[in-house]
Amino acid sequence: MTDPLAARIAALEDREAIRDLIARYGPLADSGDCAGAAALWTEDGIYEVGGFGSYQGRTAIRALLEGESHQQLIHGGAAHVLSPPVIDLDGDRAAARTYSVVFRKAEDGWEAHRVSANLWQLMRTAEGWKVACRINRLLDGSADARALIARMS
Amino acid sequence: MTDPLAARIAALEDREAIRDLIARYGPLADSGDCAGAAALWTEDGIYEVGGFGSYQGRTAIRALLEGESHQQLIHGGAAHVLSPPVIDLDGDRAAARTYSVVFRKAEDGWEAHRVSANLWQLMRTAEGWKVACRINRLLDGSADARALIARMS
Amino acid sequence: MTDPLAARIAALEDREAIRDLIARYGPLADSGDCAGAAALWTEDGIYEVGGFGSYQGRTAIRALLEGESHQQLIHGGAAHVLSPPVIDLDGDRAAARTYSVVFRKAEDGWEAHRVSANLWQLMRTAEGWKVACRINRLLDGSADARALIARMS
Repeated sequence: MTDPLAARIAALEDREAIRDLIARYGPLADSGDCAGAAALWTEDGIYEVGGFGSYQGRTAIRALLEGESHQQLIHGGAAHVLSPPVIDLDGDRAAARTYSVVFRKAEDGWEAHRVSANLWQLMRTAEGWKVACRINRLLDGSADARALIARMS
Repeated sequence: MTDPLAARIAALEDREAIRDLIARYGPLADSGDCAGAAALWTEDGIYEVGGFGSYQGRTAIRALLEGESHQQLIHGGAAHVLSPPVIDLDGDRAAARTYSVVFRKAEDGWEAHRVSANLWQLMRTAEGWKVACRINRLLDGSADARALIARMS
Repeated sequence: MTDPLAARIAALEDREAIRDLIARYGPLADSGDCAGAAALWTEDGIYEVGGFGSYQGRTAIRALLEGESHQQLIHGGAAHVLSPPVIDLDGDRAAARTYSVVFRKAEDGWEAHRVSANLWQLMRTAEGWKVACRINRLLDGSADARALIARMS
């Protein structure tokens, strides 16, 4: 790509695509589209969920979301809200850092059931940008959750 | 528009304008600018509010926000926070899906008073992008709220 | 800049840079990178914090974040979540309006400890876009917090 304007447009499009990818997680997870949510990852992508465990591959991630814990959550009333990401773009790779807040219906209103730091490793694939690894850690005061969203450069 | 770079820039600008339109709702609603909030919609746009009802046209939407329920809310301390949207652009039409969280001042801190799914139907008009229809449903476990933010394509 | 396409790209890049600048505050504040957070401001930038006071200059802002109140908060478990901003761009200056929600770990889940309106005055510098002034006011029903996020034009 030799046209400098085209390169600048491509960088904006990459950031837009990454923003879009991350924003799609919540609606897919909350609408119960487990296969759709898992397809945000690469075929062998990793989702490490604070307090739960580490899941590798679309099949494992889909099974996690089809499991009793997530299904009870969304059928009781839930919202997986992701914050605007900080995106560090590096060619065909990128890192993004976001907060995620899971709200859960309580008797009166909703409660912030999980508040987490998230580090996303993303890669450009033949299917567009995909999640190679998402690490989620509860912001409960632990040093490793704080370190996850620390400055990268 | 025959220049392919110009078409790519226009698509980015459309997404930016839609993001801007949606982000403006909260500050207008919370600052009490009821006419300004209503003007985000087309002249005969629809705002369907989960648990309240359906309002058509800027006059009706403005009256809703000038009503006792919304006025009490914002004078008691409130924030209408919209999440980053998922945007599906299709020429002069677009759909966007967001979460909305209404925080309300409580005795100690704030409570998540409403947590909702939102589907926005947007259209390009002579005044720029406007909301043709916004459907808001409480994420209280009901299937229709989950369906509202389900994958579109 | 005489190329009209280049001017449109530059405007998109400016909005992207401002979005990035604001999104970086939370992760820097929560990871305890007080110098990094202060460096989002201009050398003599202002941070007016609702309920706390007004701090001018990077040294003062860094000291605020190194202070006992902020340190206790982040070591107990906290997330400084900023909403998608409304950005009004004007050459080398810009204004942005956001919500900020500070979640704090409670015994069961997290509580919304602070919910605020924020007005950011931004300027283009030799180091890129920086915060000249950020005013934060608690959305507790007070008129001045509502006025802070009112329509600008």
